[in-house]
Amino acid sequence: MKIGIDAMGGDNAPYEIVKGAVEALSIIESQIVLVGKEDLINKELEKYTYDKDRVFVHNADEVITNEDKPVNGIKKKKDSSMVVGFKLLKDKEIDGFISAGNTGALLAGGLLKVGRIKGIDRPAIASVYPTLKGLATMVDAGANADCKPRNLLEFGIMGSIYTKSVYGKDQPKVGIVNIGSEKGKGNALTQESYDLLEASELNFIGNVEGRELPEGVCDVIVCDGFTGNVILKLTEGVAKSFGKMLKTQITKGFFRKIGAAILSGGFKDLKKEMDYREYGGAPILGVSRPLVKAHGSSDALAIKNAVKYCEIYSKSDVIEGISEIVRPKKKDE
Amino acid sequence: MKIGIDAMGGDNAPYEIVKGAVEALSIIESQIVLVGKEDLINKELEKYTYDKDRVFVHNADEVITNEDKPVNGIKKKKDSSMVVGFKLLKDKEIDGFISAGNTGALLAGGLLKVGRIKGIDRPAIASVYPTLKGLATMVDAGANADCKPRNLLEFGIMGSIYTKSVYGKDQPKVGIVNIGSEKGKGNALTQESYDLLEASELNFIGNVEGRELPEGVCDVIVCDGFTGNVILKLTEGVAKSFGKMLKTQITKGFFRKIGAAILSGGFKDLKKEMDYREYGGAPILGVSRPLVKAHGSSDALAIKNAVKYCEIYSKSDVIEGISEIVRPKKKDE
Repeated sequence: MKIGIDAMGGDNAPYEIVKGAVEALSIIESQIVLVGKEDLINKELEKYTYDKDRVFVHNADEVITNEDKPVNGIKKKKDSSMVVGFKLLKDKEIDGFISAGNTGALLAGGLLKVGRIKGIDRPAIASVYPTLKGLATMVDAGANADCKPRNLLEFGIMGSIYTKSVYGKDQPKVGIVNIGSEKGKGNALTQESYDLLEASELNFIGNVEGRELPEGVCDVIVCDGFTGNVILKLTEGVAKSFGKMLKTQITKGFFRKIGAAILSGGFKDLKKEMDYREYGGAPILGVSRPLVKAHGSSDALAIKNAVKYCEIYSKSDVIEGISEIVRPKKKDE
Repeated sequence: MKIGIDAMGGDNAPYEIVKGAVEALSIIESQIVLVGKEDLINKELEKYTYDKDRVFVHNADEVITNEDKPVNGIKKKKDSSMVVGFKLLKDKEIDGFISAGNTGALLAGGLLKVGRIKGIDRPAIASVYPTLKGLATMVDAGANADCKPRNLLEFGIMGSIYTKSVYGKDQPKVGIVNIGSEKGKGNALTQESYDLLEASELNFIGNVEGRELPEGVCDVIVCDGFTGNVILKLTEGVAKSFGKMLKTQITKGFFRKIGAAILSGGFKDLKKEMDYREYGGAPILGVSRPLVKAHGSSDALAIKNAVKYCEIYSKSDVIEGISEIVRPKKKDE
């Protein structure tokens, strides 16, 4: 199996990307294909000792930056690391592809260059959401700001299959983000989506309120991409602010400083638990081949973990599973 | 000035409501009118020593419960504490009215029994949002699950005037919740609302992402009621879960327990800072008279603080200020 990585994408490319790729070799079985400017990548690779039979470089001379307009970038920069990666993925020269680059371009390219699973209207970003009971999968984390009820049903199906295959959870509990617990609550979108999800074969548990999300009441969190993006960023922001408040409070007096010093080990553990880099990238579900979005500010640790999950995803039957459920029925079926 | 309180509304009515009302007397100048079942209220009042010239009871024999359908409840239970309160408010026999009862009924009653400010399409709940830099005002916190761009502009206007008058902030900074910082990002609603807010005379600072909200980047947070409700409940949920994680982490070893003991004072301060009861109720802006929603699980402390803010709101020129900006222009203007 070969995992492709956009070596030029993200704030810390190519150095942290290459470093993370090399570090990933110890936790995966696959080979790695680094896509991007050959000379720059090789210069980075020279810094490390690693199994040279498992790392390849595929040259691409251009780079899509965050300033590029997504569709424009994809169409014009044909020799960019991202577009070249899409081609390798589509042609099955690699089994999965990871990029920490321009999210819009990655989404547009997934659609235009790799293609959708037949029967899926809108691919979506599936992000990990940390809860007190472990990890949940949130779909959509930001690909589709405006959604139709049909999309939310598809997010539930895709998230459910992914969570089962990649995280090994049988019959994952699917909930829809809403502003009340009873059926009939919410806006027009969530009310109609509720009916579709209820009629599906998913393990649908109904509405989930913002308050319950961090408690881990469901395994798959379904919402439109606007809501999902707000939830992810707010969770990060609240945790960060909470940490700041805590720091101010606990260092107010002398004895509190001693207390804080004793506790510092605990705070470190806690910080790790809250660290997105531990969970790797976010798959773009609905694309016909394994495509993974890594955080724009990914460092080596984040890339290493993204590679690990991309391998699990690429080995899995997630895409076949989704296809089977959503493929348009033929006349005689 | 007279502040009316629905003595029968909320999970802890009437005892905590009456207790909170009596306790509020020490921090306000107004008189208080408790609306509800006379005998029950008087029985509660007998427990306390207070200035009898400042507390009145207005009888109402029915109660709208959380099981009542909002509009139905308002229409059928004409002698309920809530509907009687609306009448007193409309007839200016009280200067403000607080209820911890059925939120939907309070919103419906505000519209049907008290009436909108001329020129306002949809009243909205303005909730306090605690940030690292103090309190912000979030509009809409849950009254309108589906919104039009015009509504978000009105939320910005109402929130801005309220924040200026009640919290004394000059030129409050108004931001719109969105999933990207640049103009042009977001869903159809936020994109169009951005243009309206930008063209207004508000101190509009543009898009605000979920991550930035707890940092206190703006004084007025504008969003549709679905998003606002998710944000409020999620913030509460994350803070609570963070506290639970922290507790687990810091009590893992013996030395950590000592650290935790020393720190406990700091945790208490922190808890207070995060406590919604400190901030009282949420005004329903856009209604033509001061109407305040208190949390359903309000205890005496929450009611006491809700009364305090309701008095400030009732004394202010918020409603006149909103009317002046949004009133429909006459032909010769």
